[in-house]
Amino acid sequence: MQFSPLVSELVDALRILPGVGPKSAQRMAFHLLERNRDGALKLAGVLERAMRDVRHCRDCRMLTEAELCSICASQNRDRSLLCVVENPVDVFAVEQSSSYRGLYFVLMGHLSPLDGIGPNELGIPLLVERVAATGVKELIVATNPTVEGEATAHYIREALRERAVAVSRIAHGVPMGGELEFVDGNTLARALSGRRSI
Amino acid sequence: MQFSPLVSELVDALRILPGVGPKSAQRMAFHLLERNRDGALKLAGVLERAMRDVRHCRDCRMLTEAELCSICASQNRDRSLLCVVENPVDVFAVEQSSSYRGLYFVLMGHLSPLDGIGPNELGIPLLVERVAATGVKELIVATNPTVEGEATAHYIREALRERAVAVSRIAHGVPMGGELEFVDGNTLARALSGRRSI
Repeated sequence: MQFSPLVSELVDALRILPGVGPKSAQRMAFHLLERNRDGALKLAGVLERAMRDVRHCRDCRMLTEAELCSICASQNRDRSLLCVVENPVDVFAVEQSSSYRGLYFVLMGHLSPLDGIGPNELGIPLLVERVAATGVKELIVATNPTVEGEATAHYIREALRERAVAVSRIAHGVPMGGELEFVDGNTLARALSGRRSI
Repeated sequence: MQFSPLVSELVDALRILPGVGPKSAQRMAFHLLERNRDGALKLAGVLERAMRDVRHCRDCRMLTEAELCSICASQNRDRSLLCVVENPVDVFAVEQSSSYRGLYFVLMGHLSPLDGIGPNELGIPLLVERVAATGVKELIVATNPTVEGEATAHYIREALRERAVAVSRIAHGVPMGGELEFVDGNTLARALSGRRSI
């Protein structure tokens, strides 16, 4: 015994969502069919429009339906600074720190050869071209402090070695408000090697 | 700073899915836009078709796009037995026990006055009508052994008191393969009060 063909198809289609297994897909399908058909139809419409219209910002690769994202289009940004991040959400994190007024470049991931994600997939040629063509003076690499993020940072550093641009990496160390007792050894080692005179 | 309007709309629309909060909705939106636009378009299409075409089986309220679900339409079922369950997945559970060949009635929930779910929402008038109109001899109430499931079972029992139909409740007790040591007191109390001579 199985669900009717269309209900099975709906359960299968919901499984493309990350983190959704067979049981949650079933629960979602029944919930939508029983309690929220209007919401589901709206979701279908938005999915269609978003998949058709959302693209990468021409300059920074941020997801947007316009040619330029709101930051790249803004006139109030310091165009000599470029911050490279892995994901769109990282842009929000940096923005919330209220301490950066430059532009961004969103890689949409990190180098991961096993998943077929190389420099081209991350738009690194576009990044190099942009640095060459515009007046960027400093490139701040803010990829995550993971093995992959570090490898990506290293690759970007090498790709720009011949260019007249300063390349920096955000500092890693003990988080503000953190207590040494609870900081992992790796972070503490970084904090020590990156010490500054005061 | 915010996502572009269309991306925000997509994140919001995904939040109608049960168990999906703001962070997972964001992750889903980016995953679909970056890695699976084809899957997302397919999902949009299936959602639309399912919300338009899937309805309740005329006889048992199971979700199906046909007038009758496959069980109600089958010729190999014992039409004198009717098993009442809360949800479509419960039909699967009973089917997998391979020990029931009757028909079903799916309430699509349980009595929950605070959520506005009363007898009409559960199709209980339809159930009573069906028992009266067809040759059902025994009604097996297999709602969950929760407070709401028990209340629903009780309500159904009362609604059918005047009808010439036997109403039974599935047995509750120690699960097969379970060890007494690990069974909760409530279940054990039920198992004791429901003891049978051997």
